[in-house]
Amino acid sequence: MMSRRAVLTGPLLAAGCAALARASAPIASTQGPGVYRYNLGDYQLTALYDGIWNLPIDNEFVRNASPADVNEAFAAAFLAPGVLPISFTALLVNTGSKLVLIDTGTAGQITDSAGLMNANLAAAGVTPSAIDTILISHFHPDHIDGIKTKEGDKVFANAEILVPEPEWSFWMDNGNMSRASDPTMHRYFLNAQRIFKDIAKEVQQFKPGDEVAPGIVSVPAFGHTPGHTAFTIHSGKQSMLALSDTAREPWLFVRHPEWQPSYDMDGPLAAQTRNAMLDQAAADRLLIEAYHFPFPACGHIVRNGAGYELVPAMWQPL
Amino acid sequence: MMSRRAVLTGPLLAAGCAALARASAPIASTQGPGVYRYNLGDYQLTALYDGIWNLPIDNEFVRNASPADVNEAFAAAFLAPGVLPISFTALLVNTGSKLVLIDTGTAGQITDSAGLMNANLAAAGVTPSAIDTILISHFHPDHIDGIKTKEGDKVFANAEILVPEPEWSFWMDNGNMSRASDPTMHRYFLNAQRIFKDIAKEVQQFKPGDEVAPGIVSVPAFGHTPGHTAFTIHSGKQSMLALSDTAREPWLFVRHPEWQPSYDMDGPLAAQTRNAMLDQAAADRLLIEAYHFPFPACGHIVRNGAGYELVPAMWQPL
Repeated sequence: MMSRRAVLTGPLLAAGCAALARASAPIASTQGPGVYRYNLGDYQLTALYDGIWNLPIDNEFVRNASPADVNEAFAAAFLAPGVLPISFTALLVNTGSKLVLIDTGTAGQITDSAGLMNANLAAAGVTPSAIDTILISHFHPDHIDGIKTKEGDKVFANAEILVPEPEWSFWMDNGNMSRASDPTMHRYFLNAQRIFKDIAKEVQQFKPGDEVAPGIVSVPAFGHTPGHTAFTIHSGKQSMLALSDTAREPWLFVRHPEWQPSYDMDGPLAAQTRNAMLDQAAADRLLIEAYHFPFPACGHIVRNGAGYELVPAMWQPL
Repeated sequence: MMSRRAVLTGPLLAAGCAALARASAPIASTQGPGVYRYNLGDYQLTALYDGIWNLPIDNEFVRNASPADVNEAFAAAFLAPGVLPISFTALLVNTGSKLVLIDTGTAGQITDSAGLMNANLAAAGVTPSAIDTILISHFHPDHIDGIKTKEGDKVFANAEILVPEPEWSFWMDNGNMSRASDPTMHRYFLNAQRIFKDIAKEVQQFKPGDEVAPGIVSVPAFGHTPGHTAFTIHSGKQSMLALSDTAREPWLFVRHPEWQPSYDMDGPLAAQTRNAMLDQAAADRLLIEAYHFPFPACGHIVRNGAGYELVPAMWQPL
């Protein structure tokens, strides 16, 4: 029924030709703005899309799952195997008196198909200099690169920067760097030092568990990196959980929380953290948000067999 | 771990107070633009968000499901029972030489929380006068009201309007109107006549099954209304299926395709059509789009037990 085209009828063909004579609109080369707002109590959250990094992966990408099982999970998500589309969405929290940005996007320093966050911040009507506070979940490049331009200039002129103390201790330590034999890890150390070393005096360290901004509480979520941190956000009677990288691509690691991707530094600990947080999110029916969930990167978690499922939030008017 | 706030530490409290002294950004009152582009062969599709109608429903909303089962389906979607959030997203097809709009949004004539389509069309850089062709799936008000303003003026000055012949025959017939005892149905008749009567000479009728624009083939999908029509879109080697109202809220009628909502005029026929199309979409792994799916209203269908599941498309840069 739907696989073949019906024959054009005479009158319609004539109408089609008349229309063809009109001017056409150009095919657009850019996506629509990636700005999605939702309210939480008196706070307003804005999901700011940064883009996607299409990263080729190999058979060792998930340490404890067979390539066949991983490929099946890709197919179930209508994705081609062998390339991981890593989506980036930063979260802006407007408390009414403060603008708090959780993680900072890639600033185009990782791949050409990401780096849209500042354009989307502008589309949201916010200038970088209006940001009061930057909260960093961990020191992987895709979360901290937005702090500086490629040329090394600070992007958020007036923002205080708060980072997890155990992240700072780990990544800013030259001894740890010298012991990192893996070239990617070595690059992460150098990148963390590029971003933070000359602004060290301006950076405040927090202990995961601390309240880090009004109504925003950091939550230890170790495993992905040594000091990886999630955040809960509270306003009025409402709360939500920003998972950071606790669970990344939902079609892989929400559905299979026990899978250990190679980008989790401590695979077993990260899986334990992931299971605990997804379990709590499902049990408490928490609104959740995660940096690598598909834009607008928010929704709820439900149990599904041995794993979980993301129920994306429905796009709403404000 | 996540249910209580940690105590504010001294230094952080001081930092918080300093930040509170800064100017704050206003809480926004409007959602970000609802414009999402995706390519299909040489064609470009643009999902244009119109908003949501929060419609109170009663226990008879699904004719053949218990209120308890319906409420459970709402809860599984993290929605409160008793109010149906009806989302509207129109689809713009740019063939490179023609701009074809499939259905026209509500133009603010149904509820205050919908009527954003023309603002989103503007955000997409398209003026109403640039639209070459309007394809109408069926004559329910939320699909045709955008053709005219409340005051009765045509919105798309240069567009040819193509409608399914059996829709025209049914809704423009005064005998059928006089036999409609249900007040909502009577209102639909009057509304169809308000929209079409004085522009009847400009409206072309097509036979469902006809090719109605270059690469766009209408597909009979009767049941929701007597002439309700879906569309397949073909460009290069790629195809997709625009379901129109064949399946509406996915958490209800994709998951339970046999359920018969009161807005389907012929419930059994609509369910048969819905099952057949979802079955084909799942079997052929078709890209699909539907007017009432949550924005951006596109994705894929997979089988899930006795029903199906929508796998929303991942938001991508272009």
